[in-house]
Amino acid sequence: MKTKVGIIGAGPAGLMLSHLLHLEGIESVILEKRSRKDIEGTIRAGVLEQGTVDLLIASGVGERMMREGHTHHGIELQFNGVRHRVNMHELTEGKSIMVYPQHEVIKDLVAARLKAGGEILFNADNVSLHDVDKQSPKIRFQYDDSDHELSCDFIIGCDGYHGPSRKEIPDSIRKEKQHIYPFGWLGILAKTSIANPELIYSNHDRGFALISTRTPEIQRHYIQVDRNDDINIWSDDRIWTELKARVETSDGWTLPDGPILQKNIVSMRSFVCEPMQYGRLFFAGDAAHIVPPTGAKGLNLAMTDVHQVLQRGIERFYKTGSEDLLDRYSDIALRRVWKAQRFSNYMTTMLHRNVNHSPFERGIQLSELDYVTSSRAALTSLSENYIGLPLEWEAERTVFI
Amino acid sequence: MKTKVGIIGAGPAGLMLSHLLHLEGIESVILEKRSRKDIEGTIRAGVLEQGTVDLLIASGVGERMMREGHTHHGIELQFNGVRHRVNMHELTEGKSIMVYPQHEVIKDLVAARLKAGGEILFNADNVSLHDVDKQSPKIRFQYDDSDHELSCDFIIGCDGYHGPSRKEIPDSIRKEKQHIYPFGWLGILAKTSIANPELIYSNHDRGFALISTRTPEIQRHYIQVDRNDDINIWSDDRIWTELKARVETSDGWTLPDGPILQKNIVSMRSFVCEPMQYGRLFFAGDAAHIVPPTGAKGLNLAMTDVHQVLQRGIERFYKTGSEDLLDRYSDIALRRVWKAQRFSNYMTTMLHRNVNHSPFERGIQLSELDYVTSSRAALTSLSENYIGLPLEWEAERTVFI
Repeated sequence: MKTKVGIIGAGPAGLMLSHLLHLEGIESVILEKRSRKDIEGTIRAGVLEQGTVDLLIASGVGERMMREGHTHHGIELQFNGVRHRVNMHELTEGKSIMVYPQHEVIKDLVAARLKAGGEILFNADNVSLHDVDKQSPKIRFQYDDSDHELSCDFIIGCDGYHGPSRKEIPDSIRKEKQHIYPFGWLGILAKTSIANPELIYSNHDRGFALISTRTPEIQRHYIQVDRNDDINIWSDDRIWTELKARVETSDGWTLPDGPILQKNIVSMRSFVCEPMQYGRLFFAGDAAHIVPPTGAKGLNLAMTDVHQVLQRGIERFYKTGSEDLLDRYSDIALRRVWKAQRFSNYMTTMLHRNVNHSPFERGIQLSELDYVTSSRAALTSLSENYIGLPLEWEAERTVFI
Repeated sequence: MKTKVGIIGAGPAGLMLSHLLHLEGIESVILEKRSRKDIEGTIRAGVLEQGTVDLLIASGVGERMMREGHTHHGIELQFNGVRHRVNMHELTEGKSIMVYPQHEVIKDLVAARLKAGGEILFNADNVSLHDVDKQSPKIRFQYDDSDHELSCDFIIGCDGYHGPSRKEIPDSIRKEKQHIYPFGWLGILAKTSIANPELIYSNHDRGFALISTRTPEIQRHYIQVDRNDDINIWSDDRIWTELKARVETSDGWTLPDGPILQKNIVSMRSFVCEPMQYGRLFFAGDAAHIVPPTGAKGLNLAMTDVHQVLQRGIERFYKTGSEDLLDRYSDIALRRVWKAQRFSNYMTTMLHRNVNHSPFERGIQLSELDYVTSSRAALTSLSENYIGLPLEWEAERTVFI
């Protein structure tokens, strides 16, 4: 087998890249370890930046999102039992976010690729990479119980944190920088009505809580828990009691409850791999970086890896033969990745109860919330990050490696 | 002896309060442990917020400052060897800071108090406080080799971190919250020319450095050192070598050197005492809070403690008999104190090399600098804090205790 661009992983990064390349007439093949049903059913993030929304619409895959998604013009920050609305729409001159789940984006992209005759090989197993530092790298894998080799001009590793591609960067070059936060998130999907028109991020003495939504009937909420908790110690009753304690307010606002359809605990981690390229191999999305979910940046970073530089670099190569933009991919992408890490770290630090914090550090945390909610400049800074920083894909400055 | 307001400590807070009360016809007495020569000669901070400048001018003690001080419209942030100017004047709609040393402010205030017949008892020793929770608290002290008692309506503890007044709050009520930063500042006074029209804050791999000024002939610079360093291991040559390495740029900017007149090492600490009042005893300045010098907030916080609430509360009491504003002093002042702590902590964390930082944390630090210097909103937020947040002395929200 032969293709121009071999893509490992049918997540948001891999699917969007294949889709965008197709629109420019550049063929690609996606190898995905899991089944179509699996990737279309896994519950992940749900907040799309303005830039991601624009990209889905501009590339012709935004139709269902516009119909079924929910545009939000702001969020609410709660601390000391009081809510403070952040009017992001006004603070960012008209931008907004879209609440539309990641697996729905994936469904839309898979449908678009297949409709256009795109090749996605699901259940591709034992993927290995070869000659990534040569002109013609190869991917070997098993599919339909037989061995295959895919020869490409470029390989794009969109295979997530645990995928095989990142290990192709020699240890002497690869720097992996990470941070483990001392708490986890217990997320639920519940059959109940929408609690609030906008997301509520609550810093409570008992821990962080996030009130979110999926559809008018299904809601997505989270509470901070011990990262080592077994999900079985969290009964549905206990989860609702804890959620209510952390978000209900003294002025009579109550949280509607209902049957919990799904619950799980995720750990909170930051991770950056530098560089994000090696030879003819490039990385996008979770294969190169993980953010804690507090900033809602994971899916959006995957999209900008692809859209900000990778797609343009590949297009330029096939149009002009020049690899100049691809050569700068890592430098340009990492600058944005680090800014997203910074913001995710900021939100996480500001909103969670940290048992390791001294009384002084707790004071700083509460005064951060007090300051942010009382300063137009600070609210604008928070909003421009939450909504998504401008692409600036021709980065003026070099990123720090 | 008897007075209306007994003030312990002739630092900026005590002197300014006595001066402002005098302007309203309210008499006070200041007891100061040290000599006039001592307090007028000790080198301390040197950056005055716009609000402090306005206060000195409005209260008639700004004349020499306006003549000898230096108005700065911004600062420079340096990292990865590149300078970025922060145009605070433009970002805060015309505000600025004044570089004018603290001991010069003290000289001006002492002169004004003495000229107006104000009582400052220098070399007052063995100060002790009595009946602070009664209507008529007393200060006992030794002066001119004899014992004295000063009976007052109010006592104001402006006696710094090591002063006796704070201990009058019972342990069961007093909360002291503090943080020790893992580095120190080596500060020098040097006879050389002005290096740069504005202050330079540099984050360098070798550590933080700050280029400042005092007069056209005398400059004040700082370098981050180990907090346990003995000043004697830092020869003048070594100091200049280190300073130059941390602030000189590849485009040929060099740092002028010269004889070092004075050098010392200070540790970096944050400290907040809650509450800031007990009975008829109130605290202002370092007696209640210490900030690391990176945010240039120490002197300014002392001034706002006094000006924002204390002076007005005392005036209201003598005009109307109401203690309502004095009762809220601590709540109102602490909200501002914590915001200054937040900003000082932010600047300190962003600018210093922390040997305990992981590579991820170093990445976050550099991306904070990258983000701040590329976002107008973030630059505005930094500037409004550096220039000084608005007084808002009728705080709408309760502070967090």
